[in-house]
Amino acid sequence: MPVGLTEPELLLAVKGIRLSSVAAGIKKNGANDLVLIEMVENCQLAAVFTQNKFCAAPVTLAKKHLSNTVPRYLLINSGNANAGTGEQGMQDAIQSCRLVSEQTACKLEEVLPFSTGVIGENLPLEKIAGALPELCQGLSEGNWLAAGRGIMTTDTLLKGFSKQFELQGKVVTITGLAKGAGMIQPNMATMLSYIATDALISQKMLQQCIKTVVQSSFNSITVDSDTSTNDACVLIATGCAENSKIEDDDENYKVLFKAMSEVFVYLAQAIIRDAEGATKFVSLQVGSARSVDDARQVAYTVAHSPLVKTALFASDPNWGRILAAVGRAGVDFDLDKIKIYLDDVCIVSNGGRDAAYTEIQGQQVMQQQEILIRIELNTGKHSACIWTSDLSYDYVKINSEYRS
Amino acid sequence: MPVGLTEPELLLAVKGIRLSSVAAGIKKNGANDLVLIEMVENCQLAAVFTQNKFCAAPVTLAKKHLSNTVPRYLLINSGNANAGTGEQGMQDAIQSCRLVSEQTACKLEEVLPFSTGVIGENLPLEKIAGALPELCQGLSEGNWLAAGRGIMTTDTLLKGFSKQFELQGKVVTITGLAKGAGMIQPNMATMLSYIATDALISQKMLQQCIKTVVQSSFNSITVDSDTSTNDACVLIATGCAENSKIEDDDENYKVLFKAMSEVFVYLAQAIIRDAEGATKFVSLQVGSARSVDDARQVAYTVAHSPLVKTALFASDPNWGRILAAVGRAGVDFDLDKIKIYLDDVCIVSNGGRDAAYTEIQGQQVMQQQEILIRIELNTGKHSACIWTSDLSYDYVKINSEYRS
Repeated sequence: MPVGLTEPELLLAVKGIRLSSVAAGIKKNGANDLVLIEMVENCQLAAVFTQNKFCAAPVTLAKKHLSNTVPRYLLINSGNANAGTGEQGMQDAIQSCRLVSEQTACKLEEVLPFSTGVIGENLPLEKIAGALPELCQGLSEGNWLAAGRGIMTTDTLLKGFSKQFELQGKVVTITGLAKGAGMIQPNMATMLSYIATDALISQKMLQQCIKTVVQSSFNSITVDSDTSTNDACVLIATGCAENSKIEDDDENYKVLFKAMSEVFVYLAQAIIRDAEGATKFVSLQVGSARSVDDARQVAYTVAHSPLVKTALFASDPNWGRILAAVGRAGVDFDLDKIKIYLDDVCIVSNGGRDAAYTEIQGQQVMQQQEILIRIELNTGKHSACIWTSDLSYDYVKINSEYRS
Repeated sequence: MPVGLTEPELLLAVKGIRLSSVAAGIKKNGANDLVLIEMVENCQLAAVFTQNKFCAAPVTLAKKHLSNTVPRYLLINSGNANAGTGEQGMQDAIQSCRLVSEQTACKLEEVLPFSTGVIGENLPLEKIAGALPELCQGLSEGNWLAAGRGIMTTDTLLKGFSKQFELQGKVVTITGLAKGAGMIQPNMATMLSYIATDALISQKMLQQCIKTVVQSSFNSITVDSDTSTNDACVLIATGCAENSKIEDDDENYKVLFKAMSEVFVYLAQAIIRDAEGATKFVSLQVGSARSVDDARQVAYTVAHSPLVKTALFASDPNWGRILAAVGRAGVDFDLDKIKIYLDDVCIVSNGGRDAAYTEIQGQQVMQQQEILIRIELNTGKHSACIWTSDLSYDYVKINSEYRS
């Protein structure tokens, strides 16, 4: 059961974007597994990809295509990651783009491929070829929910979010999709996520937007410290909203960025709320640190501690485990000055349990579904916030049965 | 059930060492929880301690005492870590040493205190005081097994090992104890471990011995990446074996070091074999690396991956998870040159699944209780080996129920 998350009932169309989704038979359960996203001509598109050295063939190819041309189509399959597949994987990724270019009469380089699912199995190209005609015929502005469903793997629900706001008197729409529930510690990228707006913005500012906004959204979550081979986050601006073009870091950019940030953070948090086996949604705030790196280092060390995560699952205010994780984070601080809180309850001060702390206070916080762990290092002025989940029986169950 | 490990039936006495163990009532289950180790005068003693910033009061005090004097007594309690207890914790640790010094007529500084168990609760000093007379009366050379039992917490069995060998025609004995099953990624130290020999060796060479040998034993294991606040490893040389004193890195030192290494590696592996919830004993060998640091970085990244650990639990040759973990380790290598093996089965070569690999081969290896994952980076001449366990339902169970 996801923590405090339900499926969106509606996702708003974005002028200039058409989508389609079919079941090509890549997933064993017969669910939709092939998605096509068509972008109007003269779109701007910016993307970030996994930093994993073993990045999948479609990631390598998408980066290459993106460096040469403005793409017209995104082809996304779920159920097979086309990762760890060597030279054959690259040939298959190229061929999948060729199939789309033949159906749509665009250039091969105008198609970006994306795959997610099991690593190490070859892409079933014949299934993709067979499903493509129906996929292309189905393109429609109203298909965001269907597309969201088509990119899911171990997700228990569809993750999407829409936002509308005014820019210079014009209504601007942002709609985004994301998938991911495990193998989540995005690194300068995310699991698969596609966010589109009809705002008109320069390529330079769109790049700046995605680079900044992923840092405080998809790059601030972790389920299990495992960075996928296939992470990609794509931000599209169709320019159909008829606002005057955003070309600088001005007031209009700030309005767009604020709305964009809301969409990105919602989607990133949705991944954690639906994390494999999650029963808790945990925010880790590290404040008054010497640097943002220090703050993130402490936050991630606590977030990755299996002992902290199992204590969270047990609703056990076993704060000694939090303290032990902070202590091994490799960050310098003064034992007597650090403070650790569960929500507003101070648990650690003066190098040990806070004098006023009682176990009952801790239990009350830990029994909540949403928990804030706040650590004040008192070594400087920087801070960071990341989001994570707990470690439950179901995490082990899901990940020991995934392929069977 | 520990993986390929049974309790020792016999641990050999070490001339110059007497031990005692009683149930002081610190553990709720009534098991032995207080241990005293007495060393003959003029012993040499070397120790390494946790690098956790939140190190426990007894760790701080033991280091201080050790810097001033040659200790005569080690006082070890299980069931309470006296960590995260602030100034009160330090006062309690000092008082526990004072109680021993009063009973034994030694100086307070000649007692080293050690604690292991739940973090954040004050040490029950009155229980220790009450049990000390019986503890001191019980001192005997034959009590190694009882002492080993007295330092256990979540361990399912006693971990100890003895070795005898000849040095210059004299019989030399080494006997060691270790405890630990969770919160295990020792960092320049270990969980609690006490190893004694009757060999005669200088303080300088004993220091060199422990520093070198922990690196390839206790500093090469991980259960869950969590470094304890209380880790300590103590190596004692009583000098009673009457060999001529080892003062240099000569042949005699090498003979002693080889035997010592066997004891340390046995005990370190025993902790992994008895790791919380473990069903597998996994060796991670990383070879042909640019540096030992690179090799260890890759090994630990794979060893800490919850997805690799759950695949190991499931006996699932889901090698894509190993590849993904290697790829995110932050170490440079050439995708086409890296090779990954399960035992002797090559699973990854030329950037993807090895051409000759079959799933059945992988399954055969993964169904074993003991598994070797070997990664050849082919970037240099260095290597590292670490040992770890899998992530099972029982790990979650043990760690979500530990305090209740």
